[in-house]
This record gives sequence, structure tokens and C-alpha cells, in this order.
Amino acid sequence: MTTTPNQACDLILFGTKGDLARRKLLPALYQLEKAGLLCEQSQIIGVARDELDRSSYVELVKTNLVRFLKKEALDDKVWQALAAKLHYVQLDMTKISDYQKLAAVTEPNKRITVSYFATPPALFGDLCRGLAEAGLAAEPSRVVLEKPIGHDLASSKVINDQVAEYFKESQIYRIDHYLGKETVLNLLALRFANAIFASNWDHNAIDHVQITVAEEVGVEGRWSYYDDAGQMRDMVQNHLLQVLSLIAMEPPARLDADSIRDEKLKVLKALRKIDQSNVQEKTVRGQYSAGFVAGQAAPGYLEEEGARPNSKTETFVAIKVDIDNWRWAGVPFYLRTGKRMPKKHSEVVICFKPQPHNIFRDTYRDLPANKLIIRLQPDEGVEIQMMNKIPGLGEHMRLQQSKLDLSFDETFKSQRIADAYERLLLEAMLGNQYLFVRRDEVEQAWKWVDSILQAWKDSNEPPKAYQAGSWGPVAAISMMARDERNWDE
Amino acid sequence: MTTTPNQACDLILFGTKGDLARRKLLPALYQLEKAGLLCEQSQIIGVARDELDRSSYVELVKTNLVRFLKKEALDDKVWQALAAKLHYVQLDMTKISDYQKLAAVTEPNKRITVSYFATPPALFGDLCRGLAEAGLAAEPSRVVLEKPIGHDLASSKVINDQVAEYFKESQIYRIDHYLGKETVLNLLALRFANAIFASNWDHNAIDHVQITVAEEVGVEGRWSYYDDAGQMRDMVQNHLLQVLSLIAMEPPARLDADSIRDEKLKVLKALRKIDQSNVQEKTVRGQYSAGFVAGQAAPGYLEEEGARPNSKTETFVAIKVDIDNWRWAGVPFYLRTGKRMPKKHSEVVICFKPQPHNIFRDTYRDLPANKLIIRLQPDEGVEIQMMNKIPGLGEHMRLQQSKLDLSFDETFKSQRIADAYERLLLEAMLGNQYLFVRRDEVEQAWKWVDSILQAWKDSNEPPKAYQAGSWGPVAAISMMARDERNWDE
Repeated sequence: MTTTPNQACDLILFGTKGDLARRKLLPALYQLEKAGLLCEQSQIIGVARDELDRSSYVELVKTNLVRFLKKEALDDKVWQALAAKLHYVQLDMTKISDYQKLAAVTEPNKRITVSYFATPPALFGDLCRGLAEAGLAAEPSRVVLEKPIGHDLASSKVINDQVAEYFKESQIYRIDHYLGKETVLNLLALRFANAIFASNWDHNAIDHVQITVAEEVGVEGRWSYYDDAGQMRDMVQNHLLQVLSLIAMEPPARLDADSIRDEKLKVLKALRKIDQSNVQEKTVRGQYSAGFVAGQAAPGYLEEEGARPNSKTETFVAIKVDIDNWRWAGVPFYLRTGKRMPKKHSEVVICFKPQPHNIFRDTYRDLPANKLIIRLQPDEGVEIQMMNKIPGLGEHMRLQQSKLDLSFDETFKSQRIADAYERLLLEAMLGNQYLFVRRDEVEQAWKWVDSILQAWKDSNEPPKAYQAGSWGPVAAISMMARDERNWDE
Repeated sequence: MTTTPNQACDLILFGTKGDLARRKLLPALYQLEKAGLLCEQSQIIGVARDELDRSSYVELVKTNLVRFLKKEALDDKVWQALAAKLHYVQLDMTKISDYQKLAAVTEPNKRITVSYFATPPALFGDLCRGLAEAGLAAEPSRVVLEKPIGHDLASSKVINDQVAEYFKESQIYRIDHYLGKETVLNLLALRFANAIFASNWDHNAIDHVQITVAEEVGVEGRWSYYDDAGQMRDMVQNHLLQVLSLIAMEPPARLDADSIRDEKLKVLKALRKIDQSNVQEKTVRGQYSAGFVAGQAAPGYLEEEGARPNSKTETFVAIKVDIDNWRWAGVPFYLRTGKRMPKKHSEVVICFKPQPHNIFRDTYRDLPANKLIIRLQPDEGVEIQMMNKIPGLGEHMRLQQSKLDLSFDETFKSQRIADAYERLLLEAMLGNQYLFVRRDEVEQAWKWVDSILQAWKDSNEPPKAYQAGSWGPVAAISMMARDERNWDE
């Protein structure tokens, strides 16, 4: 992997006025500038439809940063350095000739062109063609694609084919922002640099795994857009399956992009198919009704602004996933994700098998099994749940369950944790693909997801209701309970 | 095990004016009183040769507590409750008829007689006979014995036989104060209530174990006494072997005294014999010369007050112990203990086998293996040494070695850790033998130690010099280095 932090790039930000750019990408670039990780010669070229001169654009970016930088004030010195890199190009993305304007501000011989497609995927074809016509698609240039890439296998192929017409796979950086999280990288360190965990990472030691991505928000004013997709497409096909593949993958022989992604792909290929024959047993679909979230009344999904009253779209999914390979035979991976849950909370819980024999049963009847809890948001970290003796005198051994922090050394606890987009932008500018999704991963994930979506469609069952502010429908609890397990709270 | 905390006892403290009673036993009884763990009806009967009336004795105890209570002032309410339990009996321990005086203050029908022998072992025979004659040796009475119990197998048998003439093994509580430490009990919880550790506790996962008991002090004015014994008898035969047996034992089927001690004995029986054929290879003997400890000049062993200039007694021992059984085949246990080392420090380090394949070698060439560090003193606790990702952006995965605390939940960190003697006195009064040493353990330990002592004697080699304030002779480092290992610092 490239090790030079200061590679000069022309980062072309298509959709610079959009939501993602404002909330995530521009603040991330500010943080990279602040950390000295942006090459001085790099440029950031914002592209949108509006007519703006450069200074107006710079002012816009500044206003945006002041609004979206978390927990800190704009540092003037950092801002000046960043502002010096900013350029703006007004462009109608459907008009191929417009892309020549980009040629005027870029220098592919001196700086690597990195084109970030923060736009609807329908534009990807035009964007690629325009870049190619402007001489900005040849290697070593790169293109960064945001999800969603299609809504099923067929449509994802169409979009990926459009991009592949102009860019090689080695130039394509597909974003799943969960892969940019500090804790996800720490998970790789934990699994692959620590023999005590590596040796316990299979069906011998592990009973089951839980992956939860709970959102507090509802559909946030994008009802129609969401309704066409549903939670399966919105969250499972990408984030949950990406996290699952990192948890379940075989150790790669090398820490390079293809070695890692080859192993992730193998996991996806080993997922047991879910279709009409087992979809009832293996999945739960839910849809939130009115309730209370964060102390406030929240309307049901069908009562949201712009809602179609008969929609059967799921806002909650729970799946019992079986991975049919040597390492994971008999170890279910329970996935759970939904909107309008009690709080925003994403975590992975590795539930180890319990002690076979409990010698402490006089004082602690049912000894809880060990757990490794990997918190992905909001508060990143890793902790281990284990049994300790309660300190102090008293009749013999009294035990307590302790949660002990495995994340970071004391020295780093006060340090700011980088946002995933900071990491991903940096890696894209450095040319390291290991945190980006390869095409075959996307397609294998769609294959598996499509089978479930088809089975749901064929069964035509309505989703099960759950109150906004609860952890999902009762059926999701039953799914675990039938296996004599329960969700970690 | 008995679960009633408030069993009424007559605790007879033979040697109440001696060093152990003053520094450890009486302060421990104060703490037990403070914690409400002394039964209200219990009595503490101090016994010594001096003529003292009760109030003078009470005053003496008070003065002693004020001096030896650590980090706290005498609480008057606690003191009053304790003082109410105090009695004094003046007794010539070699005069059997004197013991009748004890009959006057004890009530074996109402309170269990617990006789603590805080005296030289030469008196044990008389103490037992005297108690028997006074009707205080019959079950359920108990006797608590301090080390040293003999200086070799033969002499230990003589003493144990003397006691066994009047007391059954189930009545005998042999003290090794290391068994009373909070962290030692936490180690049992860690090993036997946590599958993730239990499954990694053998030759498959562990490379070697280190046990260090380093003392800062020299011989503290007891030169002749120590010179007859040496570090092997003073520390290895008891404390280090006891700790080793807890680390290495098979999981007991039940948490009762004999189940645990049976397993400990099995370890001692499996220690590979060290005799003339391998003593040079397996052991290092050292003797401290002049140096600096804790910033002050310290004389050499042969320059201490009362020293005989030709003494070959060792003040330092390092041993490579092999445990010949299924669990530990090929896993050396390196023991190390000495006087006048840089600091008072006792710990066990479980060194796991390293990761077989290092995918992080670009940034971290030699990935350190995981370690589990059990600190026994001065600062009790358990920590795990593992690899984490260094938080923050930067070219790909940079790892750091972290030491993460596995000891106690946050809530308990501020709590006072009980002294080992508090625990042991309590367990003796409750009648729980599991933290006390059984006769066969003592004898098996002596058997193994005697073989080494004999081999040293036969070889007649002088001990290797090490500077006071250093970690021992160079030979101790070489012993590890030959095996491509090194002592944890």
C-alpha cells in the first residue's frame, strides 16, 4: 500500500452543494487539512449546476463548515490553507461538452484526478463519459462512488457496467462508510494481531454473533425515496453485510486490498440462501407505527409526510444468517436493523460459548458467557464482558459480570476519533482500496439479498408492526428466543 | 463451604507480642471488625510470656494499631467493639499446666476455638499438647500454623507429626499468605468462570509462564536466621510454588477445599525433578553485593550486620521449571525471586504464543505476543497486553501495544483491597480450608525443593553475585536468553 501521505490530487467533488458533501465530505476535508494530511498542491474542485464564482463558493464552503463542524470552532489558519485549495466549476452533468471546463483547472500529469460522485447514481454514466471526454478517466485517475448502486442485482450491474466502460476496477472506489470507522479497523487489529482472539474465532469458541444497526430517525422527509428501497436495501445489503464479512472472514495472507476483499467475498458466497422455503423462519420484516422516540411523540411510517397509506415497505429487518463453511458451521449470525428504534446504536456482539462446568454455582447459578462487544456508533470502542471476583471480604467467591474496555490505551482516550469519511477520503487520495467495496462483493451481496426480497414479494405478507421507540416487532425477539438466545441490550 | 459470616470463635493468638501479630494479625482483626465480619460473641485471646493485666494488653493493642494501621486513623466505635473482645492470658508455652488458664476464658461449647500459632515452629509440639490438655484440641477446634514448617522434608514431617498427634488434618490451617490475596482469588474467577481464558490455558496457546517475587529489602536484621534458610526455603518452597500450582492446576470439579488442593498437589507431583544431572542448566543461585536500592546505598549480603563472611547462602533464585503433564508439556515456568532487587514487585506473566503469521509486518515487524499479567503486589490487578490500532488517520494500519486492565469494574477501583491476612483469618474462623495448604502439598513441595538443595550442596558452587538494586545475576538473564525468551520488565 502507498505510504506517502502527501500525494497531490485534484479531488473533483460532483454534487458539492448536496447533503453528503455538506454534512460529511467538506468537514472531512477540513479535518484532513487540520491534520496536515492534505498535500499542499492538492486541489478541491466543487462541481454543481449553479453559477457561482470562486469566492462565492469559498464563502459557501466556509458557512457550511461553521455549521457542520462538530464540537469545534473554525480554525482560521486551517481554513485559509483549505480555502487556497478550493475551486468551483459550474457544470450541467448531463452535458458532456461542459466537462471540458474541468480540464482547465486540473493537471492529470501533476496531480491524480479523484472524482467523487456524490450524486444520484442515474448520473454516473454521464459523469464517467464526461470525465473520459475531458481526458480525466485514464489511469491513474480514480472514481469514488456512493451508494446506492442500484436496487437489485440487475440494476447494480447496469450502473457498474456504465462505470466500467471508462474505468478499470482498480480505479473504482465504492464507499461503504462503515468500512472507514476507527473501530472497524481496530477489529482487524484485534482479530489478526492477537493470538488469544484469533484462536477463539470459530464455531468451537463462539455460540453466535449479533449485528445491530439501530437508527433513531424515521425516514427524514424522504418518504417516497425510502419507500422504493426499504430497510433491506438501505442498510442490510451494504452496511450489515460488510460488517458481517469483516467479522467472519478468514485471516488474509497479506494486508492488501485484494487479499482482504477476496476473503470478504468468500464469506458472502458462503451465506446460506434464503428463499420461499425458509424466509419465514429466517427473517422478520417490521414497519414502525406511532410511538415515542427520545421523549417525543413520533408518527407511524404510514402517517409520515408524503406517505402512501398502503405501503408494505419494511422499516425493520431481522435475519438469522447461516454461514455454511468450516469456521462458522452451526454459528448463527443474527442481523437486526431498523428505523425509529429507541436510540442510534450500532454494535457487533460476539457471544462465546459458556463455560461447560460451573464451579461457582453456589453463589452464581447461571454463569453468563463471555462476550466481545464492538460498538460502531455512536460511541466507538471494544469491550469484553467477563466474570471477575467482587473485590472484598465475605463468604468465599462472589462473582460479578464486568465490562472491560479493550479499545484504547489511556493515553488515547481523550483523542478525537476520526470520522469515517476522513479516513475514506484519505485512502482514496492515497490509492489504497482495501476499505472500499469491490464489484464482485456488491453483486454477491445483491444476489443473496435479491433472493430474500423476491421471497418477501412472493409471500406478499405485510410487515409486522412495532411501536416507534421500541426495539422492533415481537417476532424479532421470538426469532432469538426459539433458539434459546436473546438480543444483547 | 460455610456461609454464615458471623460464627462465634475464641481466637487464641499465641505470640501476640510478636512481629506478625503486631504488623498483620491485629490490624487484620481491626479491619474485620470494621467490616462487621467479626461475630459479636467472638473473643480474641492474646497469649504471651509477659505478665499483663487485661487493660494493659488492650492499651498495647491500641498503640500497636495506631502504629500499624495503614492509611487510616483508628475509628473509635470500631476500636471499642474490638477492645470488648480482647482478653490476655499470660502463659509459659513450654509449661503444659499453664494452658489451664485458657480454659477459664474459652467456651468450646459456645464458641469454636481457633488457635493461631504465631510462634517459632519449635513450640508447636508444646502448644498442641497444652491445648489438648486444656480440652481445646477436640473438633471442631482449629489450629492455624505459620511458616516455616521445617527446613526440609524430614523436619517438616517432624513438626507436622507433632501437630497431627492432637489435630486432624481437617482442623489444620497452614498459612501461605499469598493464597489470601484478592488477586489470587480473582485469578481463580478468571480461569474458571471465563471460557475465553479457560480454552487458552495450555500448551497450545501458552509459550511460557514467568513468576517473579522481587523483594526490595535485604535480610532486615535477621542475618543468622536467614542464612540458615536461604531464598529457596524462604520464598520458593512456599509462595512461588503455591502460586505456580494455582496457575497450572486442572479446573477442579467443585469449589471445595479438597478438590482444589487435590489439583494443586497434582501439579507439584508433576514438577520435573531437578538434581545433579540438570541443576546447572535449570537453576541460578545469586547473592547480592553492595549497590543502590531505592536511591540509597545498600551493603552486600556479606557486609550486613552479624554476617559470616564465607556464607554461600543464596539471596536470589531463578529456576526453569518443567511440568510434565498433558496441559503443560513444553511450556516452561520460569521462577525468579530475590532480596535487594530494584523494587518490591510480585507478578505472574502468562506469555501466549505469538501470532503464527504477521500481516502487519510493513508497519510492525515483530508483533509482540499477547500477555496476561497478574500483579500480586504491591499494586494488585490483572491486565492483558494486546495489540490495538493506534487511533487516528495516517497511512493504513499502525498498531500499538496496549496494556488493558482486566481487574475490576470502575465502580470498585476506589475500594480498599483487603490484606491477605484479613481474608485468611476470616476463612479460618468460618472453617473454609481452601486457601490453606494441606500437609501433602507441603511435603511434595519439600521433596522437590530438597532435591535442588541437595544438588546445590553437592556441587558446592558459590552463588553468583548481583548488585543490590539489580534484577539478579546475569546468569538469570542468560537462562531465559538461551531459550530465546526474556524476563518481562
